[in-house]
Amino acid sequence: MSDQEAALRQIKRGSEELLVEAELVEKLKTGRPLRVKAGFDPTAPDLHLGHTVLINKLRHFQELGHQVVFLIGDFTGMIGDPSGKNVTRPPLSREQVLENARTYREQVFKILDPEKTEVVFNSTWFETLGASGMIRLAAQHTVARMLERDDFSKRYASGLPIAIHEFLYPLCQGYDSVALKADVELGGTDQKFNLLVGRELQKHYGQAPQCVLTVPLLEGLDGVNKMSKSLGNYVGIYEPPQEIFGKLMSVSDVLMWRYYDLLSFKSEAEIAALRQAAANGKNPRDIKVALAQEIVARFHGQAAATAALEDFEARFCQGAIPDDLPEFTLKADKPEGLSIAQALKQSGLTPSTSDAIRMIAGGGVKADGEKVSNKGVVFSIGSTVVLQVGKRKFAKVKVE
Amino acid sequence: MSDQEAALRQIKRGSEELLVEAELVEKLKTGRPLRVKAGFDPTAPDLHLGHTVLINKLRHFQELGHQVVFLIGDFTGMIGDPSGKNVTRPPLSREQVLENARTYREQVFKILDPEKTEVVFNSTWFETLGASGMIRLAAQHTVARMLERDDFSKRYASGLPIAIHEFLYPLCQGYDSVALKADVELGGTDQKFNLLVGRELQKHYGQAPQCVLTVPLLEGLDGVNKMSKSLGNYVGIYEPPQEIFGKLMSVSDVLMWRYYDLLSFKSEAEIAALRQAAANGKNPRDIKVALAQEIVARFHGQAAATAALEDFEARFCQGAIPDDLPEFTLKADKPEGLSIAQALKQSGLTPSTSDAIRMIAGGGVKADGEKVSNKGVVFSIGSTVVLQVGKRKFAKVKVE
Repeated sequence: MSDQEAALRQIKRGSEELLVEAELVEKLKTGRPLRVKAGFDPTAPDLHLGHTVLINKLRHFQELGHQVVFLIGDFTGMIGDPSGKNVTRPPLSREQVLENARTYREQVFKILDPEKTEVVFNSTWFETLGASGMIRLAAQHTVARMLERDDFSKRYASGLPIAIHEFLYPLCQGYDSVALKADVELGGTDQKFNLLVGRELQKHYGQAPQCVLTVPLLEGLDGVNKMSKSLGNYVGIYEPPQEIFGKLMSVSDVLMWRYYDLLSFKSEAEIAALRQAAANGKNPRDIKVALAQEIVARFHGQAAATAALEDFEARFCQGAIPDDLPEFTLKADKPEGLSIAQALKQSGLTPSTSDAIRMIAGGGVKADGEKVSNKGVVFSIGSTVVLQVGKRKFAKVKVE
Repeated sequence: MSDQEAALRQIKRGSEELLVEAELVEKLKTGRPLRVKAGFDPTAPDLHLGHTVLINKLRHFQELGHQVVFLIGDFTGMIGDPSGKNVTRPPLSREQVLENARTYREQVFKILDPEKTEVVFNSTWFETLGASGMIRLAAQHTVARMLERDDFSKRYASGLPIAIHEFLYPLCQGYDSVALKADVELGGTDQKFNLLVGRELQKHYGQAPQCVLTVPLLEGLDGVNKMSKSLGNYVGIYEPPQEIFGKLMSVSDVLMWRYYDLLSFKSEAEIAALRQAAANGKNPRDIKVALAQEIVARFHGQAAATAALEDFEARFCQGAIPDDLPEFTLKADKPEGLSIAQALKQSGLTPSTSDAIRMIAGGGVKADGEKVSNKGVVFSIGSTVVLQVGKRKFAKVKVE
């Protein structure tokens, strides 16, 4: 495999669609560093692993010697929602935009190489474009073609309103590519139409059209829905190391391989070797540990990754919780459930409730691996909890 | 009839549609001078009577004490045709716009009172609006409602392209009304949709919506098609007095009454009296003369009107051409028709063709009242011409 074939393979890895591959091959052949654009909202970033799929792909380009253009779309952000319908989207001030840009840098430079990253703001060119420039821009596209965009055509067909400025946003995004002379633009699959508008506009302005590379939306921890904060199935890159570690250990084996493809920086060959090992009987948990370690190290450093692993093992692996712990089904003693003192007493972990309360005060009681310091804890009806007193006494309690 | 009723009647005279009449009544009741807006292209104006229907209506408002806002749409004119499709519409320079504005003033102040006319340019507000302001403006209207405009819906249905900037122009026109706080806007019937967009935008910006008054398109001299330069059925306000006079004398009696309604400054009562006189047997030609006189006087002054009338009468009325002149039907002597020398000889006006040529050279020959100085004139087959030699010798010649 030639260097160029290897480069193309690396670029396409885990991506959804590349338009137009032959054009990208030509661009790669020139040997010059390509300008690889990706646009981001100017709103306060709080990235989760779903967002990093695209950022990882930018990193691939950097590893191949290309220049990333990290575009912050502050122009529209400073307009806010002009329809006035979305009260939760007030316009951002210049200060907020700059602060958000700082936070972006902090987060993405955990993945990207700052030396090969240009952070730009599209207000730079839109503020001088003027109303007349916006009209000229709007002249470059037709209503009919804009209505071909999937969400527009659905809304139009079902009589839902489309405000005219919504037609201007894809044109603005496309004009960014003109202003930046982008060679490649990356985006989620839902961005394909807009990325193609960029190609059209570049042609109109006499530039070689950018190649378009779309990346898939990452599934959340449930393996079904896309990762999103509102669905609660996400891993935030700023969550504590143990939290990230634990969440990644909880995913299914199938999802683990998907995460390897989209999130790991291991080479394809390394991942193939892991798959082979699993096929040969290696415990998938160990392969999951390696992934969780890699991700924690990326955002919190190697030391934190090691500590998270040790903590995890202390709690769940090194026999800390025996496989054959005694199980009890206990009746609630309160309308809201079973008090911890009763649970400890009835499961035989403490001789009495007062002993139980004393043990809690002394820091010797854990529930599901977490130390309990509040004697008022109540386990709700239907829940199951693993209780631990001291180092060796365990019981699994089901409340009914 | 109260003053207000009279005012409303005067405003509605000859108009096509008033939206919303009740609102205009309320505005008139306030007694304050209303701001009456009309927008004009920034291209070089060369007005004909068709254009003056609207300007006359503005004058009616002035006569009732209101303020005319004469808007020159230079903003879009300075953009040109951004689609690049219309090469005949290059952008105008600031100098051209100012020069055109000067020419406008020169022409419209023959009708309007300069004291009650504010001439404004919409570049004033659009140059500071910016790209962001344009997006906010575009957010105030939906794609579906814009597609309801008759020409848009037809083009969309038949697959003809509509460039997106075409959706911005009605919004710009509407925003002019916001910037000017217009109480009333006038326009041709083809402008109704755009004028209503102005109403919507004003409501959105917290202003009382403007009333919309549309005026009909004036029929040209043929009485069928709308008056237009390209159809050749027009009367330009800068044509020579005799030309205007003659063209107006050529219209049908039916069209004459239409022109009275839309072009004359005579009161409705005066026009009613003329109609009565015609019904009682007054020669319509005399009524037509009065109209032609009024129009010539408006654009060239009373002296020119008097002179045009005298010239017209000298040629066609005061017995200069006898009612009972001898008629001849003569055969063409050339493939293209009958030469003037043969026509003069065969009709007996000159004894020979050489006498005819001598008379032409001496300036003593007229054809249809116009002096002939070219002996090579040929009358085409099928034509009829009144020939005159000296003061008293006439003949009507038909060529076959």
